Amino acid sequence: MSSSNVKKVALAYSGGLDTSVILKWLQETYGCEVVTFTADLGQGEEVEPARAKAQAMGVKEIYIDDLREEFSRDFVFPMFRANAIYEGEYLLGTSIARPLIAKRLIEIANETGADAIAHGATGKGNDQVRFELGAYALRPDIRVIAPWREWELTSRETLLAYAESRGIPIEMKRGKTSPYSMDANLLHISYEGGILEDPWAEPEETMWRWSVSPENAPDRPTYVELTYEHGDIVAIDGERMTAAAVLARLNQLGGANGIGRLDIVENRYVGMKSRGCYETPGGTIMLKAHRAIESITLDREVAHLKDELMPRYASLIYNGYWWSPERRMLQQMIDASQATVNGVVRVKLYKGNVSVVGRKSESNSLFDMNIATFEDDRGAYDQKDAEGFIKLNALRLRIAGRKGASFA
Amino acid sequence: MSSSNVKKVALAYSGGLDTSVILKWLQETYGCEVVTFTADLGQGEEVEPARAKAQAMGVKEIYIDDLREEFSRDFVFPMFRANAIYEGEYLLGTSIARPLIAKRLIEIANETGADAIAHGATGKGNDQVRFELGAYALRPDIRVIAPWREWELTSRETLLAYAESRGIPIEMKRGKTSPYSMDANLLHISYEGGILEDPWAEPEETMWRWSVSPENAPDRPTYVELTYEHGDIVAIDGERMTAAAVLARLNQLGGANGIGRLDIVENRYVGMKSRGCYETPGGTIMLKAHRAIESITLDREVAHLKDELMPRYASLIYNGYWWSPERRMLQQMIDASQATVNGVVRVKLYKGNVSVVGRKSESNSLFDMNIATFEDDRGAYDQKDAEGFIKLNALRLRIAGRKGASFA
Amino acid sequence: MSSSNVKKVALAYSGGLDTSVILKWLQETYGCEVVTFTADLGQGEEVEPARAKAQAMGVKEIYIDDLREEFSRDFVFPMFRANAIYEGEYLLGTSIARPLIAKRLIEIANETGADAIAHGATGKGNDQVRFELGAYALRPDIRVIAPWREWELTSRETLLAYAESRGIPIEMKRGKTSPYSMDANLLHISYEGGILEDPWAEPEETMWRWSVSPENAPDRPTYVELTYEHGDIVAIDGERMTAAAVLARLNQLGGANGIGRLDIVENRYVGMKSRGCYETPGGTIMLKAHRAIESITLDREVAHLKDELMPRYASLIYNGYWWSPERRMLQQMIDASQATVNGVVRVKLYKGNVSVVGRKSESNSLFDMNIATFEDDRGAYDQKDAEGFIKLNALRLRIAGRKGASFA
Amino acid sequence: MSSSNVKKVALAYSGGLDTSVILKWLQETYGCEVVTFTADLGQGEEVEPARAKAQAMGVKEIYIDDLREEFSRDFVFPMFRANAIYEGEYLLGTSIARPLIAKRLIEIANETGADAIAHGATGKGNDQVRFELGAYALRPDIRVIAPWREWELTSRETLLAYAESRGIPIEMKRGKTSPYSMDANLLHISYEGGILEDPWAEPEETMWRWSVSPENAPDRPTYVELTYEHGDIVAIDGERMTAAAVLARLNQLGGANGIGRLDIVENRYVGMKSRGCYETPGGTIMLKAHRAIESITLDREVAHLKDELMPRYASLIYNGYWWSPERRMLQQMIDASQATVNGVVRVKLYKGNVSVVGRKSESNSLFDMNIATFEDDRGAYDQKDAEGFIKLNALRLRIAGRKGASFA
Repeated sequence: MSSSNVKKVALAYSGGLDTSVILKWLQETYGCEVVTFTADLGQGEEVEPARAKAQAMGVKEIYIDDLREEFSRDFVFPMFRANAIYEGEYLLGTSIARPLIAKRLIEIANETGADAIAHGATGKGNDQVRFELGAYALRPDIRVIAPWREWELTSRETLLAYAESRGIPIEMKRGKTSPYSMDANLLHISYEGGILEDPWAEPEETMWRWSVSPENAPDRPTYVELTYEHGDIVAIDGERMTAAAVLARLNQLGGANGIGRLDIVENRYVGMKSRGCYETPGGTIMLKAHRAIESITLDREVAHLKDELMPRYASLIYNGYWWSPERRMLQQMIDASQATVNGVVRVKLYKGNVSVVGRKSESNSLFDMNIATFEDDRGAYDQKDAEGFIKLNALRLRIAGRKGASFA
Repeated sequence: MSSSNVKKVALAYSGGLDTSVILKWLQETYGCEVVTFTADLGQGEEVEPARAKAQAMGVKEIYIDDLREEFSRDFVFPMFRANAIYEGEYLLGTSIARPLIAKRLIEIANETGADAIAHGATGKGNDQVRFELGAYALRPDIRVIAPWREWELTSRETLLAYAESRGIPIEMKRGKTSPYSMDANLLHISYEGGILEDPWAEPEETMWRWSVSPENAPDRPTYVELTYEHGDIVAIDGERMTAAAVLARLNQLGGANGIGRLDIVENRYVGMKSRGCYETPGGTIMLKAHRAIESITLDREVAHLKDELMPRYASLIYNGYWWSPERRMLQQMIDASQATVNGVVRVKLYKGNVSVVGRKSESNSLFDMNIATFEDDRGAYDQKDAEGFIKLNALRLRIAGRKGASFA
Repeated sequence: MSSSNVKKVALAYSGGLDTSVILKWLQETYGCEVVTFTADLGQGEEVEPARAKAQAMGVKEIYIDDLREEFSRDFVFPMFRANAIYEGEYLLGTSIARPLIAKRLIEIANETGADAIAHGATGKGNDQVRFELGAYALRPDIRVIAPWREWELTSRETLLAYAESRGIPIEMKRGKTSPYSMDANLLHISYEGGILEDPWAEPEETMWRWSVSPENAPDRPTYVELTYEHGDIVAIDGERMTAAAVLARLNQLGGANGIGRLDIVENRYVGMKSRGCYETPGGTIMLKAHRAIESITLDREVAHLKDELMPRYASLIYNGYWWSPERRMLQQMIDASQATVNGVVRVKLYKGNVSVVGRKSESNSLFDMNIATFEDDRGAYDQKDAEGFIKLNALRLRIAGRKGASFA
Repeated sequence: MSSSNVKKVALAYSGGLDTSVILKWLQETYGCEVVTFTADLGQGEEVEPARAKAQAMGVKEIYIDDLREEFSRDFVFPMFRANAIYEGEYLLGTSIARPLIAKRLIEIANETGADAIAHGATGKGNDQVRFELGAYALRPDIRVIAPWREWELTSRETLLAYAESRGIPIEMKRGKTSPYSMDANLLHISYEGGILEDPWAEPEETMWRWSVSPENAPDRPTYVELTYEHGDIVAIDGERMTAAAVLARLNQLGGANGIGRLDIVENRYVGMKSRGCYETPGGTIMLKAHRAIESITLDREVAHLKDELMPRYASLIYNGYWWSPERRMLQQMIDASQATVNGVVRVKLYKGNVSVVGRKSESNSLFDMNIATFEDDRGAYDQKDAEGFIKLNALRLRIAGRKGASFA
């Protein structure tokens, strides 16, 4: 399809310098109308300013949506039911936001009759994949424009020159004086680039934006009680609240106690290793607490099966396959497992540590004090059963041993 | 087999009250000779006193072995190559010691001509399984005597009465005034029973023995550099040392900084849920640091495959299958993957937190700064490749979408 | 619990010699009432004669149920949605019937106020496990009596002597002149024991009961069309029929064409290897055809995920965990995947061979002729996309290669 | 890299029309020297004629290699140790040949100083991926030229016109009067395209080239004994032979008995579904027999672990990742498991059927007749052990049941 065929593009527009340049570049290069879409995902920046900027560039159809509740309820919470962590460490804060943006962008394209979408992700990262796989799944014949893969503005200088020559205010950049490439939403904020490109270099304290350092956190622990229904937190310290409110409150509590910083080297889907730092205060608490409520309400084999499938589920989200039949299939299984995951977890937050100090479930606890006790259990458990259990589990090993197999 | 057939029993003997009662009970019940085996696994208690106690009860063959190095090198270290954690939390401190005791007990039985072994594990726990599966695998026709599953001494009172009546000094119990059932070795110390039987109850601070609380840890962080060869730590801050020395040093460093406390409800192999608290100061540092060195030296798909198999590997160890062909098969794969896991990790220890702040590998880093950079990469990576990559990965989703499949 | 506590036992009663002896033995040993339950699972033998036999032994509550439809619809069909095969070969014909018998036995125990159940499975096999795990899951405090594990009638001679002395007609044995231990239901017939205990010995032709040998099958192939809805066969050659009717018809077609014989050594859950021969004519056709309809209607990654989980699902059924939360969780995922598995498969049956010769799906085919074609596809697929796809998939290998890794 | 930079290309050259056109096109388009590489992989066609054809087009460096032994020993045999099947059906005949061609092509490029390689695979298929992933892994900076993705000769007509205009003899096409796209080597022959593009159409009998139809196979069965060492067949009917000789003999035996035809729709790595027919006579026998020898020599859990990992291993080979660290890691595990896979399997071949009728292993059988027997086992197995085994395996289900969980 040649560029002349594009009539209208729906653009994921942050209001910042880069996507403003993209907006202008699309108008110039494709001679097409641009529809802008700006989402409030809880990144902590005003989204309304994007309206005036878009208008100033002649955009007629401007979408500014508050997606915080949908993001928390339909994306973050389902993912946490799986205890998802990528490569043993990463809580998938950026990954989980992309499918929602892709979905909304396609909806807007459909509503406005746009024949293409565009985004500001580069050709090196995971986000382009996440946006585009989602878009293609939801509208198979959509045209995708990824300016970073197309244009000549490949250095910071050429980009700034382009902005200047088109009268795009450079002060947009203000506030982004950070040397890092960042992404934020209700779940996390991430940092890449700058000195982080050396995996041996420790990030300076000033980089972190959402949390105090453990060193600067209060000298007294904070205790919190989290109430779960079907695997989701529905109340904090007894106060019922929405998913987005839960995330916001836990971010505040976690951030204040120095919780949720992470510094890793991860494997991108496009094939290279990359250093990233993350702050996920609320999510860090959620993961720990969710495992705790599952520990008393989930059957052992169900829990183990979830654990074995988790890395694959996490990879699907990391790689951009939220809108795939295999992610859906896994989600159905995971969600089904959460029917009994009801109860309360008590956690202690202190200078970077999240410690589970109590868990209970009125209706669904599988913890049986009578059987577990070290005291006399009055026949709840017959210790003699263990002999047969061990003997038959050992049978194949014994037969092999007798036949000469060596296990040592 | 009737009890009269047993001529000589090799007993895993701690020197404490319980196994002293067992020693006497074996002599009385089976009319057999008893060989005692006491191991120093780094539990932090003197093992030599067991000699006099055994002699006092007429034991002629007494084995007291320092197994700390073998334990660390051949059991703990291989397990950490797998990043093994049971149920997302537990570092398997007790589980990994049992197969070594089983092996040594069988060796001693073979050396002394014993026709049976005996241990002091109860019929409710995992340890009986771990001892006995190991014993059966290594000597298929060994007779196993598990007094707790056989005798009538099922309450503390009857046990004490038995001890008293046989002149077994009750002061043995001294020092174990703890209300908890504990197990310790170079990797960890565990606590069960007492108020822990209520999963809602927070353990009191006095329970913990190996670590200061994060609250009482120093106000300044400690930085440590760990050198890896083939996935194992071989030096700390540049000083080469043995596996046992590594563990001891990291326990000291971790314990001093409030690191490695854990409070969980876990699923036992015999079928019930049970509450346990653990201190694993060194192991907690090792897990975090090992993932970090792997993050720059391991291929993505190798790392992911390891992650997907890890829960099963951990379950094998938890359930007592160290001496099984399937554990061996997995170990071969894991060990093979560690050929390139060489380099240095720098960690920061502070009030309960282990933070990785640097990782490097002269010879095996797969981190390619030229490709990963956010700056101009001068053609190291062609961003245009991403389009085809995404398009073909999306193809099945697009075909399905066109055929009417709905992923939303 | 001492034997005197049992008041009423629900017995899985075939009407044959063994379970008749058990019936009498229960009455004598436990002094209890016995309720008999005889199921028609399509084993091909009359079940009504069991009534008179039970009455003759004084049984007052006699259940004789035709469970063929429930067995096919709620057990066999769901299992085939998973393409379940144990150890690469076995279609689980015996395993899948046991949970239904366990369930019905517990229902009858509940209805009749029985406090125990009994069955005729030995202590060496899998069936005891399957019966009892099901029973315990469905009624946790049920008492289970397994006479073969309790009584002294451990040889054929003592059993016959017991029968004679109690006036149990030995002619019951009639028809079972086979030297093999057999089990049959609508899905299969199995053979164990006799000369099969030597894995090198080929079974004689006369052993097989349900199928002609390929040698004796017709010289002309039979073609059949199977219509699928949501993964289940609902019509054969266009004729709609129930699940049980489908199984019966396919057994007839398969048996006549020499299809479905199997001769294997399998690993029992209790730890030993055992030789078994099986005839599963209809099931063999179903497995092949189900894979074929899935091949055009299932997404690739969904199909692969099913394939990777299949061995575990099959083991769960083989080991007796039908009534477990983990089997249910997997089933939910599998069933969800079958929503699109609709269409028709055409198979050719000929002297032992089942060959798929056609598959189609009006509504759900994901096969896209325009894209797959070797002819000019007029832009349906852009071959240039492949370059980027390969380049990025190769990136990690190239980086590693440049850094000196050797893959050869 | 612009085309002018290529000085010498190593081309995978069959001697047929397509690769001859490619040869000429490379010379013309890149103005470079071409080195040809023609491999005898057992495809059943003469490879020597390729020499004269290459010479006629001015090629100076011509490699014609007999790789049948290396192919069988180092690629086919290791793969069969894993019981690899893609998507439940496909024996990977084409997939397993590609990595060897890639390796040899890179070796030749290195020997001759070529800076690029070229192949005749199209941009739609899996083979391009397999060739190129291998090439990139073995020589990360190799230039790959895939003419089908570059040139304008996209229809049969333009290709023929090009050939004619350059004097490339069209009679080369001779023998390939088949309407199918075919690929052959010692393991299999494949057919795609033509009427196969309709998945409902049955292929005509004349398509199949390697096997007689079951209908035309002999009326008498053939019995064969296969001797295994470490998982590989080393002798047939007692006669020792090389890997290639084993494959050739089994192909002959299987083909003569109508064995190994397959007709499937498979999922390509590049994203579309495609219909393929395959003849794999020897491989079909090998898979069945290998499972049989494993059934008596492999531990249960080792076998199950292999089964669970097999689909992933098969996908790796199908997708072209033979030369990857993850395939190597899996192979190490698989190979290690085969140490005990020694013995003899007896199979019966008859009109399309491969039936195992016997298996034995002097040194490594884990089949224990004394334990497995239905007769009196004289205490080899204590049936009473089963009660405890079942009770503890049921414990979690019973606790859940008592707490109100419903499994029905």
